[in-house]
Amino acid sequence: MNKASLNEKFAMIHEHWRPKVVAQLNGQEVKLVKLAGIFPWHHHEQDDEMFLVWRGQMTIEFRDRRVILQTGEFCVVPRGIEHRTMTDAEAEVLVFEPAETRNTGNIVDTRFTAPNGVAI
Amino acid sequence: MNKASLNEKFAMIHEHWRPKVVAQLNGQEVKLVKLAGIFPWHHHEQDDEMFLVWRGQMTIEFRDRRVILQTGEFCVVPRGIEHRTMTDAEAEVLVFEPAETRNTGNIVDTRFTAPNGVAI
Repeated sequence: MNKASLNEKFAMIHEHWRPKVVAQLNGQEVKLVKLAGIFPWHHHEQDDEMFLVWRGQMTIEFRDRRVILQTGEFCVVPRGIEHRTMTDAEAEVLVFEPAETRNTGNIVDTRFTAPNGVAI
Repeated sequence: MNKASLNEKFAMIHEHWRPKVVAQLNGQEVKLVKLAGIFPWHHHEQDDEMFLVWRGQMTIEFRDRRVILQTGEFCVVPRGIEHRTMTDAEAEVLVFEPAETRNTGNIVDTRFTAPNGVAI
């Protein structure tokens, strides 16, 4: 029941692509992540995933099209749908998804797969 | 997999305290609500509830203290905890909670209880 500030939490993140948990509820987590560059193609077998851009711009690429999200825009990627995320410049993004969701979904990538449950 | 804008969605809401669903995922919903005034005391027996202020300021009052959320601040109200929300001026708020969560929780109020599942 303590409050937190998105700006203050994002200021504590000094790496890209490694989500940090800022809230847990109903088996879900709200994670903050700073994006920069291009993430690997993947999908989540069981988990829908929502992206909400807090600062900057990001692209979600599907196999047949791209969705460009500006600050204050959001998109749900349904389970099973292959996608990758990318940015030209650093972006700050909220992710809503089940607590056990691996950031790289069905793949394991030595550079990009991040540990779950890292809270800030 | 379509994107949406929080500002555009909030601009479509012309009433207070009646949440509108803007995203569904993993049995949860993201709802937008405009707050103004004081909401009744209630709790949610089974559901944790997260509030994130998009514009303005809101107060979450518990029986023993108040949490004041400014724009960009958030708070999770755990299941079973009695609370009420209030604002001095209109505020725009995201709510993240299970899809079946009734806005007034354990009470039914002719003025404040809103229908579930109203999407915009």
